[in-house]
Amino acid sequence: MTGVAVIGCGYWGPNVVRNFSALEGCELRAVCDLDQARLEPLAGLYPSVRRTTDVREILDAPDIDAVAICTPVHTHFPLASAALEADKHVLVEKPLTNSVESAQLLVDLARDKGRVLQVDHTFIYASPIATIQSMIQSGELGQLLYVDSVRINLGLFQRDVSVLWDLAAHDVSIITHLIDDDPLWVTATGSSHYGELENLAYVTMVYPEQLIAHIHVNWLAPVKLRSTLIGGSKRMIVYDDLAPSEKIKIYDKGVSLNADPLARERALVDYRVGSMWAPHIEKVEPLREVCRDFLGAIATGRAPRCDGQAGLAVVRVLEAAQQSIRKNGERISLSPR
Amino acid sequence: MTGVAVIGCGYWGPNVVRNFSALEGCELRAVCDLDQARLEPLAGLYPSVRRTTDVREILDAPDIDAVAICTPVHTHFPLASAALEADKHVLVEKPLTNSVESAQLLVDLARDKGRVLQVDHTFIYASPIATIQSMIQSGELGQLLYVDSVRINLGLFQRDVSVLWDLAAHDVSIITHLIDDDPLWVTATGSSHYGELENLAYVTMVYPEQLIAHIHVNWLAPVKLRSTLIGGSKRMIVYDDLAPSEKIKIYDKGVSLNADPLARERALVDYRVGSMWAPHIEKVEPLREVCRDFLGAIATGRAPRCDGQAGLAVVRVLEAAQQSIRKNGERISLSPR
Amino acid sequence: MTGVAVIGCGYWGPNVVRNFSALEGCELRAVCDLDQARLEPLAGLYPSVRRTTDVREILDAPDIDAVAICTPVHTHFPLASAALEADKHVLVEKPLTNSVESAQLLVDLARDKGRVLQVDHTFIYASPIATIQSMIQSGELGQLLYVDSVRINLGLFQRDVSVLWDLAAHDVSIITHLIDDDPLWVTATGSSHYGELENLAYVTMVYPEQLIAHIHVNWLAPVKLRSTLIGGSKRMIVYDDLAPSEKIKIYDKGVSLNADPLARERALVDYRVGSMWAPHIEKVEPLREVCRDFLGAIATGRAPRCDGQAGLAVVRVLEAAQQSIRKNGERISLSPR
Amino acid sequence: MTGVAVIGCGYWGPNVVRNFSALEGCELRAVCDLDQARLEPLAGLYPSVRRTTDVREILDAPDIDAVAICTPVHTHFPLASAALEADKHVLVEKPLTNSVESAQLLVDLARDKGRVLQVDHTFIYASPIATIQSMIQSGELGQLLYVDSVRINLGLFQRDVSVLWDLAAHDVSIITHLIDDDPLWVTATGSSHYGELENLAYVTMVYPEQLIAHIHVNWLAPVKLRSTLIGGSKRMIVYDDLAPSEKIKIYDKGVSLNADPLARERALVDYRVGSMWAPHIEKVEPLREVCRDFLGAIATGRAPRCDGQAGLAVVRVLEAAQQSIRKNGERISLSPR
Repeated sequence: MTGVAVIGCGYWGPNVVRNFSALEGCELRAVCDLDQARLEPLAGLYPSVRRTTDVREILDAPDIDAVAICTPVHTHFPLASAALEADKHVLVEKPLTNSVESAQLLVDLARDKGRVLQVDHTFIYASPIATIQSMIQSGELGQLLYVDSVRINLGLFQRDVSVLWDLAAHDVSIITHLIDDDPLWVTATGSSHYGELENLAYVTMVYPEQLIAHIHVNWLAPVKLRSTLIGGSKRMIVYDDLAPSEKIKIYDKGVSLNADPLARERALVDYRVGSMWAPHIEKVEPLREVCRDFLGAIATGRAPRCDGQAGLAVVRVLEAAQQSIRKNGERISLSPR
Repeated sequence: MTGVAVIGCGYWGPNVVRNFSALEGCELRAVCDLDQARLEPLAGLYPSVRRTTDVREILDAPDIDAVAICTPVHTHFPLASAALEADKHVLVEKPLTNSVESAQLLVDLARDKGRVLQVDHTFIYASPIATIQSMIQSGELGQLLYVDSVRINLGLFQRDVSVLWDLAAHDVSIITHLIDDDPLWVTATGSSHYGELENLAYVTMVYPEQLIAHIHVNWLAPVKLRSTLIGGSKRMIVYDDLAPSEKIKIYDKGVSLNADPLARERALVDYRVGSMWAPHIEKVEPLREVCRDFLGAIATGRAPRCDGQAGLAVVRVLEAAQQSIRKNGERISLSPR
Repeated sequence: MTGVAVIGCGYWGPNVVRNFSALEGCELRAVCDLDQARLEPLAGLYPSVRRTTDVREILDAPDIDAVAICTPVHTHFPLASAALEADKHVLVEKPLTNSVESAQLLVDLARDKGRVLQVDHTFIYASPIATIQSMIQSGELGQLLYVDSVRINLGLFQRDVSVLWDLAAHDVSIITHLIDDDPLWVTATGSSHYGELENLAYVTMVYPEQLIAHIHVNWLAPVKLRSTLIGGSKRMIVYDDLAPSEKIKIYDKGVSLNADPLARERALVDYRVGSMWAPHIEKVEPLREVCRDFLGAIATGRAPRCDGQAGLAVVRVLEAAQQSIRKNGERISLSPR
Repeated sequence: MTGVAVIGCGYWGPNVVRNFSALEGCELRAVCDLDQARLEPLAGLYPSVRRTTDVREILDAPDIDAVAICTPVHTHFPLASAALEADKHVLVEKPLTNSVESAQLLVDLARDKGRVLQVDHTFIYASPIATIQSMIQSGELGQLLYVDSVRINLGLFQRDVSVLWDLAAHDVSIITHLIDDDPLWVTATGSSHYGELENLAYVTMVYPEQLIAHIHVNWLAPVKLRSTLIGGSKRMIVYDDLAPSEKIKIYDKGVSLNADPLARERALVDYRVGSMWAPHIEKVEPLREVCRDFLGAIATGRAPRCDGQAGLAVVRVLEAAQQSIRKNGERISLSPR
């Protein structure tokens, strides 16, 4: 029975608390937040769970085997490294940390300590992305040509991270998961119309063989969009995470280079337009899968789906994008791992 | 009575023919195409109009005062310069030419010859853009923060120009018209998955004071989108050119920096969410307005709404974007005019 | 301090419990359900509230002034009448009862006992309907011409009531609230493809001066729709309750009889097409307003917005529609009240 | 070579002219309209076609084998019967006539004369309806449970027919084509807010075994909708004729009576929710198919897809609906054919 504690009970923490309290194979033993007021509502719901404002109580508790860290981004590294040092398994809210250096340190520390380090990139555990990934791997999409992701809405401006590290972290995690490779380079442009942090950013990730991934994130948009286009040489996907049903639409459409040189004089490519198909997507709470994966990795020793390396890969892209924005869109190469 | 000829009767030319034949104050006197087969269908519709496959017949005809050039892009410069040399007024299909150098030569030639040079940037003559422009100029939008334009669909791959020079020419014309200034610099990335020419491109145009304009054009998208977001500090606009009605939606939404420093600790910005308003948009054929403006400029000597300078401004951005793509996303500064 | 109990803790009851426990001016003192298992989850959330499976405990309790009845429809009458007899104020889940006779008895009993009788027609307490009603009353819509309401989805088949008494109860409550009059007559057609109860029904309510209200409810539809059209002689409204924003769209559109007899030869009517406007709708939980209104009516003696008479008016239409379905669409007149 | 003439060159006639002039196997020889001004524009387009304002010229012409009648509805019977009497094959704009009696006379006359009588119910010749029909016939939809059709917009008020005979004629033709049987009875309600003719109507068609078809037509709606739901016991279809693509969506959804009596206590039905599929629909002009079918029927002697009987079936329903409206929603039985 894995003893679990949740550190940070603001916006996301209570959801993590709810899931760990419901899952078998673990026991939620403690919750922690600097702000006592955030712990109160949990008392009624989980009367048997210890509550503390002192994180040392969590780290020193021998009945706590694993911690979930749901705190502001800049605290991820100190809290996660302290937890690993205390021999806890660690699940960190996304993004893993706010720099490649600190993310690498966590990865190394987890390896040295033989502990699970997992990042809660929720979308990677959601049914739509699993469906898309299996279509890419089975070859149904053909060669991947582009990924275009739009994640915009009005607010919610974060206090400690820009729209890049907040919203684009989702898109980068999806893209690096689907493409399963580092981009050759990254360029990005952003604006910070209010305060210091960007509220609008465009990120371009360039891969070999003309594969491009592009992200548009915006906290100042009048409409809310969560839309990703995935273009393959055989089929194309529109993934609309806000659609109440048919979140994924697979279009049997494509073009092919006209084989006949004479015909190519007339038209370079042939178009193929077939039917559209929206597979039924199981409704499961992705966070439930995140927590289940964490517990399974602890129990069996296998790596979780989003391990420290996956979290590091996301931070590498975000940091490069951040650099590019600071340098007015300069191309930032990702050094080979 | 202005005598008009149309050169090029492929896809767009017949629409120009139809409009000039219907407008008062001019007489459509000749149509020209290298391909006789394209002229045949016009015989029944406009029996009194001369048809020729020899452009010299048009240029030498004393009863032709003005020509509309609706031919492939690489022929715009030779045809337009020949027409100006022959003292004709010239309306050119978009984009004006395929290089800044040739566009500048046309502008200079038109000035020297005292002839009208106009580009058919159709959207500039459409009611939605006029509505948006008047809202910007009246201050109703507040300070302009960003323009985000998406123009994607499956095909139609062009033979002589990339998706940049074909589709993005529309977006660049809209952006340079609305912002009425050159960007400081341009970055762009593109892919040419089939053949030499890009079928997918992202263009970022950076202006002073954090104003960003961004374009996504794609000939390999499974769905057709024509959507432009315009963010102002007071109001925001969604312009969906494919909407059967309510093409423009004005959102009375925005954020403002929290004035109270203490409150700012809690939340950086305040959100304002009001009503949405979709003004009635007159349904007029923009091309009719293009032709009308051309005839008016000829008759009165005033500059047309999209004169050579406006066309040149578009080509400046497109050429810079093309250079950036070739140089892997390098930042291309636009030299001051 | 009004002492409140909630009877019935299945699907809707827990929401009523949550609201009464949060509102000031009352104290939630007891919850009741025949099924002990439904009471368990409430123990943790509301430890100080009494729990019982015996409704007599509620009715006999001197510290309970008011009860909310959230049980199956066929139990509304016996429970509500018993509660009124026990001098409790009563809030009943919609519809009030399953027959005009029993609804009338409740109304009479509440009057005789001097107790509040209110029906939880939730939509009447929602912001969109309040907005629409105020537009009708202010004359902005002009003369009301028609109301067309569609409420369809796949499932959820109820065990004790048909789609008419379940879903159409919402639409009838909206229509009788907005029109504020009984229809002259009702016709209806329905199908019961599975079991005895209708899963699909169409109801037509005819009013004086050509005003028609029409309802389409369906438990066997592949898509979920909650859409009401309201046609006025000056303006028209589309109310889409599923829209994430802009739930109400007001169209400045209409037709008018062509005044000129000669012009009328050519075209009977003139069309007017203006702008569209979506007013900002406050996001409040309608059920909170239901409970607040109930407490206010108890405290002040004024009638609640949806009193017994309003609930009876809905039952009159539903019963007439049911009769019409049974009699193959026969016209059922509503006797004057 | 079939010689064809088109009578009536108002709104729809020119489209019929264009199609017959383009089809092989026929020669468009004459066009006729009472209004000379409507014939003028056709002179330039079809210089070799005779133009006349006298219908007798058409009927007496020995080189005219077939006529298409595109005139106001009340003239369909006199013109079509005169044409049949003159031994012409006849294609009539929808609806066939404005009464069952006259429609029956035309059917009888065509049979006696051995001439083709066809009605231009355009939707029957459109790809979406053909796709739906083949799904019904193949059993893929299972048992047909309901058809629900909505055809609403602002205007265009017709001068000689109500919204029932104008718009609902389309829906009735689709329903009678798909169900291929007369309804047992029809009820309808309508309003004529401006003038004598209904501008809003609801029609219910009841078939054996609980199958219901329902139509909502409205000339006073703020939005334009062309949407048909088709519910089968195995699958359900949403047909949106205004969708730019994916006009037909097939939902693999349904319910089934819970077989286990014990389980039925808990839930009457089981729900099945599978994927959605939008088959590629060929883009063909339906009117082209109408004209082609007409010529084929003339050439081979086989009945056209929409022969006089099909047109009569539509008129039977429309006349019954009209009677029901006049009699305040009374049920009108259709006498067996």
